[in-house]
Amino acid sequence: MDTEKFSAGICPVARGALRTGDMWSMMILRDAALGITRFDDFRRSLGIAPNILTRRLGDLVKNGLLERRRYSERPPRDEYLLTACGRDFLPVLNALGQWGRTWFGEGALSELVEAGTGRVVEPAVVDRATGQPLAAMDLRVKLPG
Amino acid sequence: MDTEKFSAGICPVARGALRTGDMWSMMILRDAALGITRFDDFRRSLGIAPNILTRRLGDLVKNGLLERRRYSERPPRDEYLLTACGRDFLPVLNALGQWGRTWFGEGALSELVEAGTGRVVEPAVVDRATGQPLAAMDLRVKLPG
Repeated sequence: MDTEKFSAGICPVARGALRTGDMWSMMILRDAALGITRFDDFRRSLGIAPNILTRRLGDLVKNGLLERRRYSERPPRDEYLLTACGRDFLPVLNALGQWGRTWFGEGALSELVEAGTGRVVEPAVVDRATGQPLAAMDLRVKLPG
Repeated sequence: MDTEKFSAGICPVARGALRTGDMWSMMILRDAALGITRFDDFRRSLGIAPNILTRRLGDLVKNGLLERRRYSERPPRDEYLLTACGRDFLPVLNALGQWGRTWFGEGALSELVEAGTGRVVEPAVVDRATGQPLAAMDLRVKLPG
C-alpha cells in the first residue's frame, strides 16, 4: 500500500482509515475504552499474538491515539492510555458498533448505556449543524482548490 | 485471528470491525460511494494489486456490503454495487473522515457538502434520542443477560 498517497492525500477518510483501518487496532481501542491499559490484559482479552500486539500498540502510539507510560521500572513495564485523539475516535467506534448491531446483530449483544441512568444509547451519525442523519442526506465530495 | 470469537461474540463493535476493519475495504467502500463500480476503476483509483482487490471485493460481497452484477457476458465482466448494508456504512466512513480531518488534516483536503446547497457538512456522532454528542456523554457497556 502506498501509505504516503493516503496519509497526505486529499481524502480525510483515507487519512483516518490509515490510522485505524485494521481489525486489531480497533479492538485494542475498544478495550482501551473499557479501561484496559496493560499488555497482558490486551493479550488475554483479544487472544492476539504478542508480536502482533506489540506492533499494533506501537502503531497506535506513533499515530498519537495511545500514550505509552512506564508504570514499573523493575521489571520495566509500560501501560497504554488513550490520548485526546484516541478518545475522540471512540464515537466512530460506537457508530461502527451500531452498524454491526443493525446488520450483524443476531444473538446476544452488549449494549451501550448512559452511565447515570442505564438508558440504552443508540449512536447516530448526523450533520452537526442541523442534526439531520447523514443517511437521509444527498451528499457530495468537493475536491480542494 | 479467531474470527468466530469476534463475528458471533457479544460486542457489536467487533462484529462491525470484522466486516470492514481493513484499510483497503474502507477505501473500496469510499470509492463505491463516489460512484465507482468496476474492477479496473477501483484498481486505478486505489493503486491496489489485482489479487488483493479481488479478495477484498469478494469479502465485501460475502459480507453483504456489495452486490456483484454481471454487466458484460463477452468478455465476462462484473460490477460491484453498494447494498443497503453497504450504504448504511457510509455515515460511519464519514464520521471516520471527520476524525481524520480533525486530527490529521494538514494541507489540502476534500470536503463533504450537501448536494443542493454546497454547504459543508460536518459529521457528528450523537445519541439518537437526545442529539447529544457521544463525546460529551459518560457511557458504559452493559453485558447481555
